[in-house]
Amino acid sequence: MPFKSLDELRSACLDLPNGDQSAADAALRRQDVLTKPQGSLGRLESIAAWLARWQGREMPKLDKVKVFVFAGNHGVTAQGVSAYPAEVTVQMVANFSGGGAAINQLARIAEAELEVVPLGLDTPTGDFTSTAAMDDEAFLAAVSAGYDAVDADIDLACFGEMGIGNTTPAAAISAALFGGGGRKWVGRGTGVDDAGLDRKVTAIEAGLTLHAASLTDPLKVAAALGGRELAAILGATLAARHRNVPVLLDGFVCTAAAAPLARLHPNGLAHTLAAHVSAEAGHRSLLEALGLPPLLDLGMRLGEGSGACLAVNVVRSALECHARMASFAEAGVSEK
Amino acid sequence: MPFKSLDELRSACLDLPNGDQSAADAALRRQDVLTKPQGSLGRLESIAAWLARWQGREMPKLDKVKVFVFAGNHGVTAQGVSAYPAEVTVQMVANFSGGGAAINQLARIAEAELEVVPLGLDTPTGDFTSTAAMDDEAFLAAVSAGYDAVDADIDLACFGEMGIGNTTPAAAISAALFGGGGRKWVGRGTGVDDAGLDRKVTAIEAGLTLHAASLTDPLKVAAALGGRELAAILGATLAARHRNVPVLLDGFVCTAAAAPLARLHPNGLAHTLAAHVSAEAGHRSLLEALGLPPLLDLGMRLGEGSGACLAVNVVRSALECHARMASFAEAGVSEK
Repeated sequence: MPFKSLDELRSACLDLPNGDQSAADAALRRQDVLTKPQGSLGRLESIAAWLARWQGREMPKLDKVKVFVFAGNHGVTAQGVSAYPAEVTVQMVANFSGGGAAINQLARIAEAELEVVPLGLDTPTGDFTSTAAMDDEAFLAAVSAGYDAVDADIDLACFGEMGIGNTTPAAAISAALFGGGGRKWVGRGTGVDDAGLDRKVTAIEAGLTLHAASLTDPLKVAAALGGRELAAILGATLAARHRNVPVLLDGFVCTAAAAPLARLHPNGLAHTLAAHVSAEAGHRSLLEALGLPPLLDLGMRLGEGSGACLAVNVVRSALECHARMASFAEAGVSEK
Repeated sequence: MPFKSLDELRSACLDLPNGDQSAADAALRRQDVLTKPQGSLGRLESIAAWLARWQGREMPKLDKVKVFVFAGNHGVTAQGVSAYPAEVTVQMVANFSGGGAAINQLARIAEAELEVVPLGLDTPTGDFTSTAAMDDEAFLAAVSAGYDAVDADIDLACFGEMGIGNTTPAAAISAALFGGGGRKWVGRGTGVDDAGLDRKVTAIEAGLTLHAASLTDPLKVAAALGGRELAAILGATLAARHRNVPVLLDGFVCTAAAAPLARLHPNGLAHTLAAHVSAEAGHRSLLEALGLPPLLDLGMRLGEGSGACLAVNVVRSALECHARMASFAEAGVSEK
């Protein structure tokens, strides 16, 4: 287990490599001589430079793209915050294994490996309205599981999640880190009605009050209000930074899970792109707070890494143009 | 040549099949039993139904996806409306043949066939500030070439274009069809400076004045102010409708080229999706005027069908989820 104390984890979050600026600069210089008006590929050009920076080479590769779906269960479901019963988490993990979920189809299309990482599904976290979701030991174990999952040979990692009830912890973390109260951050998740939405707000406000003394520390926020799959995403995002692996973040839950790293370090999420903005109400505000403009906006709100997987093709397209387009000189095309 | 007179073409534009509503309904019913909260795949769900409607089957396919790049040259380049010399059109067509352009890479990633259709590159259209861009014969020949290019065995067609100077005809057509004057619709194209932008406005205003008597007829707008590649896109879009081929429209020029069909028939572009919104200034307004919300918004402004190709993966992802996800019953997942 890489992190045996919050202090060890905190030190790791503050000690972040900054990527290879010279590789990014070289990539941008290359973009400027390819047969297109400068800048006309828009974000595909900056994506190429981003890959170059975080892989540490002017000519990045995408031979190994991997999608991780971290799964956990949540004590706060006792507060009636989800439209689905908690047993759906384990049923959906079985569906992932059987190949029947959306993420199976999207990972195949993205030519990405899929790894599902269940985290103690038979022991839900504590209900944060009455206790901490996780004590330090449980939190560090989940962060460490995520950290250990990300190998350095991955060229691009997608993070996603499954956990009935987990938009409530995500909204609670967002409120604790960025303010605005529960109402600002809640949404309908898998489809709660107005009363369910009110129960989410009530639960979050109770959690914020109960744990108020811990909420100045982003790691304690993640432990008190989060969940195991969210903690694992935090660990995986940190591991990716330490191991030169660029990351596509999925939706609201995934972004909220990684957000503590941005609160601990001013460019803690620079190696990540927001793959999409979800239809879940709080996601757009959270991406704005984090300064992460989304690549896609397709009204999706499924989780599972579905939006991240969909964005893999955008990144692949950026790399193909970067790697294989002819220059003006090579193609004999006149310049301005 | 399918269209020997404007009246024949006009009749064809008014006689549009409406797709298979029952196939679309069946596709939506299927979406509602797949293992995800209803609606949670956002636009992927409506894309599946759109494919079903226009292919006329509940279970669509994407075995043959084809990208057409129509290329033409423009007399209005004499007015100094482009940052690049007109010979770049033919040079880029050679670059397409050599595999060195962005569209070559993007078509490969999209698993799409690429066909380049050059339209009289050695005889530019007339300069619309002093004459019609095309007389009826030239216009009908270009529309017919586009119409004949789209075979009925294509499952999804992407339309794109190449033509130095062609954002000026696109802006002129937009102004003629939707009002607002030249300034509303011009942008920097491949990268003109402020003086170039002013020359574009001046040219468009001159064209709108010279051809004022023709501008109540969308087909005459396309002939007087357009270009051969734009006319071909109009013909190709019409052929796709007649032959049950769903269409991804690319950027500003492509959308402006197809717009006359929407002005002739109230749902003339219902079989098309706007693949993306370009960074070219007029595109967002044009999509709003046409009621076509874009799939992607990545700051691209290259043309060539590049944005359309990038959206193919979104459509493929939608179909894979539609065709291959398990239902709640099949996967043994509890419902709400």
